[in-house]
Amino acid sequence: MESGTARIAVDLLGGDDAPAVVVDGALRAVRADPDLHLLLVGPAEAAGEVIRALDPAQRARVTVRPVRTVVGMADHPVAARADSTVRGAVHAVRDGAADALVSAGSTGATVTAVALGLGRWPDVRRPALIATLPAVAGPVVLLDVGGSLEPRPATLARHAALGTAYAAVAHAVAAPRVGLLSVGTEAGKGDRARRLADPILAATSLPCDGRYVGLVEGYDVSLGARADVVVTDGFTGNVLLKAIEGAYAMAGGPPTGGGAPRAAALLGVAGTVVVCHGAARPEDVAAGIGLAAHLWRRRATDQVRALLDGTEAGDREERTDRTTDTEVPTS
Amino acid sequence: MESGTARIAVDLLGGDDAPAVVVDGALRAVRADPDLHLLLVGPAEAAGEVIRALDPAQRARVTVRPVRTVVGMADHPVAARADSTVRGAVHAVRDGAADALVSAGSTGATVTAVALGLGRWPDVRRPALIATLPAVAGPVVLLDVGGSLEPRPATLARHAALGTAYAAVAHAVAAPRVGLLSVGTEAGKGDRARRLADPILAATSLPCDGRYVGLVEGYDVSLGARADVVVTDGFTGNVLLKAIEGAYAMAGGPPTGGGAPRAAALLGVAGTVVVCHGAARPEDVAAGIGLAAHLWRRRATDQVRALLDGTEAGDREERTDRTTDTEVPTS
Repeated sequence: MESGTARIAVDLLGGDDAPAVVVDGALRAVRADPDLHLLLVGPAEAAGEVIRALDPAQRARVTVRPVRTVVGMADHPVAARADSTVRGAVHAVRDGAADALVSAGSTGATVTAVALGLGRWPDVRRPALIATLPAVAGPVVLLDVGGSLEPRPATLARHAALGTAYAAVAHAVAAPRVGLLSVGTEAGKGDRARRLADPILAATSLPCDGRYVGLVEGYDVSLGARADVVVTDGFTGNVLLKAIEGAYAMAGGPPTGGGAPRAAALLGVAGTVVVCHGAARPEDVAAGIGLAAHLWRRRATDQVRALLDGTEAGDREERTDRTTDTEVPTS
Repeated sequence: MESGTARIAVDLLGGDDAPAVVVDGALRAVRADPDLHLLLVGPAEAAGEVIRALDPAQRARVTVRPVRTVVGMADHPVAARADSTVRGAVHAVRDGAADALVSAGSTGATVTAVALGLGRWPDVRRPALIATLPAVAGPVVLLDVGGSLEPRPATLARHAALGTAYAAVAHAVAAPRVGLLSVGTEAGKGDRARRLADPILAATSLPCDGRYVGLVEGYDVSLGARADVVVTDGFTGNVLLKAIEGAYAMAGGPPTGGGAPRAAALLGVAGTVVVCHGAARPEDVAAGIGLAAHLWRRRATDQVRALLDGTEAGDREERTDRTTDTEVPTS
């Protein structure tokens, strides 16, 4: 268990079974981590349930910001612009009342509220949702798992750099190996998006001594044999993560080291944000709160941001080179 | 074990570890099924290994068609136009020397050779590779798993009808439930391709009392709770299938009822064709030969073809209706 105070804003009304599941998850998190402080954003009665269930000594680590409105899973993301619990949590981070936020509500609504309230990083066109899976040789960082369903090749390249920095900062992976998910490992395998992205990723400068290893396959997400970071579009990453979760359930339970995560970090925004699955159970919400605290204690967002600034310069140089190549054709 | 003679042409040189793995797989298949006849297409010495290892009584069920050239995994599919083992297997089916064919070679090369040698069904723009996974309530039919990486919505709709007929004919699923794989079950979830395809699938007439249940998620491929047939593009299906296989390996082995299949049926072509994974093991090749014999004994290809003819008429009527709607606008 890492130490150091971490103040996490929790969206009490996000998720299919909110607030009950979030209340249970918050209780578990507070009891497990003595340096954790929670700011519960939502109805006062739900927050009261958490506080009443805690020992008096633990209650001092829980505060409440009453908000009523919730964004439904079927609502359009801009509904998050209305007064809502996720917006309340975003404001708590913006105002400095919390260090990070966790929501199990609609991913689209959370991303929108965070982008509006905290801002995006200017050089990351699309924030990425990052999931970490257990694998044989260590964790596999999979991105995107739902933030950007149809990324351009340049976005995949940016996500490759993001994922590399995240693997190094959040999981202490040295010199991360980065793969692009496709249907085979031979160059040229895949659909148009992969064939376009492969050479762009090969030319992308990666932080933390990361290196691009080329195309990887579905196995590599579960087993981690070829890559520590697997880059894909949010559609593929999302269905993949859920299929792996289903496979573990079919096989009688997840492997030692943990199953498919139900909490993902949102990177590319100016704040520490964790999104839980809408069907999160109490242990998933607690894991999401724990992930947010872990990321805050490592100052992961700031570190990743600083590492990306390094690669950005590299990209710029490469772009200049390419322009020169075009102006003075060689043959 | 089903009975009835089935004569399967086997591509001895297809697959990463051919011919050794194919030789082993063919031996297992011949020994397991007394009504199975194999036509081995490839080098005479590899075929000789199979024949020498069999009992004299079993040898009568194995014949050889010597061919030398192989299509590599990295070769362009049109290389299959050259003289090759997969082409030899296709010719054996075309000439009536075999009832079905099995190859663990490049999927693209096999599809091309089959389309050229046996022909496509005129109303199926893209043949589909169909994999069957074990699930809680029965098998889940997943298509496409690599035949068509970027299908149009109309192709996804055609594949929905194909998969429905296949589930009924090959797996005796009554009134198959058909889902479109996406990132959530609420209408409107998914990328552009899914949002376009969802209403088209909803309007598609399905054979065998099949019904479209809307969007399903990654879990549904592994668990089968919501659908018996899951329709997706070949890119997503391929990475998904491999991720599930990797997850079973991580979890310490596949569930009771079998793991992720390494043999898939190719539908939409005028013949019975099974494609094995390039990294197939001997048991996978034997399973692929068994699948081909099963499909032939049920006359699955002809039955699916006949069932599609029924739905095709329905589609035509709907098209006429829509044209009328356009010509006489209502409002």
